[in-house]
Amino acid sequence: MEKGKMGGRPPEIRKDWVTNRWVIFSPARAKRPSDFKSKSPATPTQQQQYQQSCPFCLGNEHDCAPEIFRVPPDDPKWKLRVIQNMYPALSRAADVPVITVPVPAQEESSSLGQVMTGFGFHDVVIETPLHSLHLSDLSPTQIAHVLLAYTTRIHHLIANHSIKYVQVFKNHGASAGASMSHSHSQMMALPIVPPAVAARLDSMKDYFNRTGKCSVCEFNSNDLLIHASPHFISIVPYAATFPFEIWIIPLTHSPHFHELDADKAVDLGGILKLMLRKMALQLNNPPFNFVIQTSPLQDGASELPHSHWFLQIIPQLSVAAGFEIGTGCYINPVFPEDAAKVLREVNVLPLEGDD
Amino acid sequence: MEKGKMGGRPPEIRKDWVTNRWVIFSPARAKRPSDFKSKSPATPTQQQQYQQSCPFCLGNEHDCAPEIFRVPPDDPKWKLRVIQNMYPALSRAADVPVITVPVPAQEESSSLGQVMTGFGFHDVVIETPLHSLHLSDLSPTQIAHVLLAYTTRIHHLIANHSIKYVQVFKNHGASAGASMSHSHSQMMALPIVPPAVAARLDSMKDYFNRTGKCSVCEFNSNDLLIHASPHFISIVPYAATFPFEIWIIPLTHSPHFHELDADKAVDLGGILKLMLRKMALQLNNPPFNFVIQTSPLQDGASELPHSHWFLQIIPQLSVAAGFEIGTGCYINPVFPEDAAKVLREVNVLPLEGDD
Repeated sequence: MEKGKMGGRPPEIRKDWVTNRWVIFSPARAKRPSDFKSKSPATPTQQQQYQQSCPFCLGNEHDCAPEIFRVPPDDPKWKLRVIQNMYPALSRAADVPVITVPVPAQEESSSLGQVMTGFGFHDVVIETPLHSLHLSDLSPTQIAHVLLAYTTRIHHLIANHSIKYVQVFKNHGASAGASMSHSHSQMMALPIVPPAVAARLDSMKDYFNRTGKCSVCEFNSNDLLIHASPHFISIVPYAATFPFEIWIIPLTHSPHFHELDADKAVDLGGILKLMLRKMALQLNNPPFNFVIQTSPLQDGASELPHSHWFLQIIPQLSVAAGFEIGTGCYINPVFPEDAAKVLREVNVLPLEGDD
Repeated sequence: MEKGKMGGRPPEIRKDWVTNRWVIFSPARAKRPSDFKSKSPATPTQQQQYQQSCPFCLGNEHDCAPEIFRVPPDDPKWKLRVIQNMYPALSRAADVPVITVPVPAQEESSSLGQVMTGFGFHDVVIETPLHSLHLSDLSPTQIAHVLLAYTTRIHHLIANHSIKYVQVFKNHGASAGASMSHSHSQMMALPIVPPAVAARLDSMKDYFNRTGKCSVCEFNSNDLLIHASPHFISIVPYAATFPFEIWIIPLTHSPHFHELDADKAVDLGGILKLMLRKMALQLNNPPFNFVIQTSPLQDGASELPHSHWFLQIIPQLSVAAGFEIGTGCYINPVFPEDAAKVLREVNVLPLEGDD
């Protein structure tokens, strides 16, 4: 009974040196790795390039919150726009909380807990003027423009010394949290280093202190490799939290995503596009999230020999349920080396117009 | 624009002394608290009491993994059964990992990470023989039998000194992770104290060391109170991670859920039933999870003046998306005092047959 359908690979509990999070790998619960498919695929590409009711479409700029910048600048036929979020989770108008040690100045403390004003920036990157395109439909050069819009905006935000971390993320598909179907990503600039980031940095620093090496630079496994480009590799991490989770990692040590240059951005655009297309083909166009895992803004690069940014892609194939909520442990029904093999072998044909 | 639809309550970032987790409260993103409804309600109660294809139905015991015990014992007309999970996430047959400090004996270490054998117990509690009933349809006394089945099973598991923590949880509704519609809950016995539990205990211990008091005993807010019974209160926590999250807390200090006695179990059954019915009425029968937040097994009660168990209920109204995955911070669109007011005011009529 306990051997399950798979003929008996016993469960394992793993953690890696980056997230330092125990994950239970339990193939007995699941079908074969190649049988995983999304049950609720993201909306297929719309036929019409323009939708009157969509504020992100070219020509509907007046329905949006204020613009921060566009590419090309001042061009009515823009290729992408960075705007304020109409319903920001954090307010750029709030008082800036001066966080001091040990008790933050803007914090009130009671027997219930602590509170800070919700200061921060919440921006949206409209990745294309056309309603009909998804990010993975863009060419590597066009995706590079999106990636460089992130870095440009982060460079703006560094000037505000209250901002400690910028989280770049994309939610694709309604069940992955996207409220708009027009292709876009989001950036939240936070007055704190968030807990998952602090935990990741602590874990990588621990590894560095023990070994003198960066845990991400040290990655070396053909079994977990999906693809290599000139400047990046894509892998399934050793203790992937989610089935078919993918990390895209720069080959040279780099603590901050916003150090990305234009050449590498095109290479990253290419490998990101390839991963999204492999995922869509293999997993039935799943809703997905990607997040850029980088370092806190105010830390100088020279001080961070242990921290290495990467882009994490998570197809939405499972839900976090009671066990995950209670324990903070995750159960992943697909061993990472099996997921990597499946993704490595998906054959993606080049598209016309790709550079 | 930033004021949102709600007329201007600015966002707040809060944390409480129990979970020590920053949560962003951002009502500008949301509708009125009373307008929250589940978009994908859990399956309504089935008409038929027996379903031939359901292994959890009375008479289909042979389609299940081995039974651990039933109530009443040896009765073919059982009221509830505790069985092994057919597809356990952890294996009771695996080698027991002997966890030592600093390097676990059964752990292999490499440049990729660490691994342990997936040892543990994964059990299922079938809460009723009838396919047509949900947990909230049972009487307080019947629910008490379910709760006491959890405590009985935990008392068994304590005998195994490799087991450090037992996570009791219930997933109700397919989109909350339930793979079977017949009413059931699950118990996972783990060879480690899981990270979310360790973080919670550290946070409560911190508060105790600062104040000499238990952070949960100290709860004192009419604004956050939903209901009080003789032995329990139900509240919305000050820094609720999820909209309309509910905690049911024993009024007297108690570190371990499995210390629950029969009298209090009936009272807990009543308040749990009331909360589930209020939630179903107000939020359109949402899928939900509940988890019992308790203390590690091998810690004696006398050593834990800071730790206080509670039952956490989470209706599924939102998804964890890119921001939450990247940062470990959560965005909650409903202020806890608003959620508590809405839930307090839901009028639930007593059901026939309730004791």
